[in-house]
Amino acid sequence: MKLRYAPTSPFVRKVMVTATETGLLDRIEKVPSSVAPTKPNDEVAKENPLVKIPALVTDDGLVLYDSPVICEYLDSLHEGQKLFPAPGKARWVALRQQALGDGMMEAAILARYESVRPKEVCWADWIEAQLRKVRGAIASLEAEAENGTLRGPLTIGLVTIGCALGYLDFRFADLQWPQKAPALARWYGDFAERPSMKQTAPADPK
Amino acid sequence: MKLRYAPTSPFVRKVMVTATETGLLDRIEKVPSSVAPTKPNDEVAKENPLVKIPALVTDDGLVLYDSPVICEYLDSLHEGQKLFPAPGKARWVALRQQALGDGMMEAAILARYESVRPKEVCWADWIEAQLRKVRGAIASLEAEAENGTLRGPLTIGLVTIGCALGYLDFRFADLQWPQKAPALARWYGDFAERPSMKQTAPADPK
Repeated sequence: MKLRYAPTSPFVRKVMVTATETGLLDRIEKVPSSVAPTKPNDEVAKENPLVKIPALVTDDGLVLYDSPVICEYLDSLHEGQKLFPAPGKARWVALRQQALGDGMMEAAILARYESVRPKEVCWADWIEAQLRKVRGAIASLEAEAENGTLRGPLTIGLVTIGCALGYLDFRFADLQWPQKAPALARWYGDFAERPSMKQTAPADPK
Repeated sequence: MKLRYAPTSPFVRKVMVTATETGLLDRIEKVPSSVAPTKPNDEVAKENPLVKIPALVTDDGLVLYDSPVICEYLDSLHEGQKLFPAPGKARWVALRQQALGDGMMEAAILARYESVRPKEVCWADWIEAQLRKVRGAIASLEAEAENGTLRGPLTIGLVTIGCALGYLDFRFADLQWPQKAPALARWYGDFAERPSMKQTAPADPK
């Protein structure tokens, strides 16, 4: 399988963590790809007209995106403990947590895109509105860490939340989320020790 | 079930079309809700910290978002033809089509949000970049209309594509997508005749 890849994308990281946790990592060939919101990229557009990564080309030639679709596909290829629980409450909770993590990453990325615009068209209100969503998500996850819904078997929800928090540490350290969410910070401290997380920690190219 | 609702949101429309097609419409209570990207909304934030609609509160008190999660949940509640096929190629195609339709809506909405900013911080390059994604998606869907992958049983992929095209007609009629994608326009002409689509056509409040 071929995966459109960038080491700094939290959505790519989700897929890499999923591939590692499901034992599929050695079947994935990484295709380094760079996308930016206002730059065309014809190579990526051929696979995903939305010009976003990750995108996966399966061994059967099927093109899949976005990250929830790729992760669910990968989860169908192994016989171990599933990251996507069978239909029922556990599945709906995991998918809702995935949506929360994805939404945090999207809001943080929109804030970042705004901050790197030409200065004269950068709007502070937009950045603040996106970061308000991020802070709201952190507060909500702190409640989940306290009430125990982040415990239990590994799911795609927990993988996504872990990658979202990792992205905040990488690009938004000045938010200082761990100080505002101590129970969540304890959960993340353990989660970040998983080999799948340590092997995929984001870094800017040198 | 209670659904955070707005008549102009294409993501809400997806859920309403899904509820109609699966025979669940009369179990849904609509809670009119208005969200905008830079305005706080504490009521919606209590259910979805990302402050987006739709959000669904189930009869068991579970809060679900975003639209793919809500639609898959609804699809689990009925015994008819499923909109989410069982794992296998049909499912991956349907989920990829859903991601494409959702991505078109997101890009179009980002272009719209940009266009209603204070004029001095409105960036034409951003609008153009989002509309380039929309045009790319239309070209890709035209190929799908020609090669037959939009035929077959109703899936969440087709529902999402239909709602995305309906949103373009509603807010971006000047894109004139049907002239650039005649096979897709024929497909949509039939699709838009479904009662579920006619009953959910978007309109601005009078």
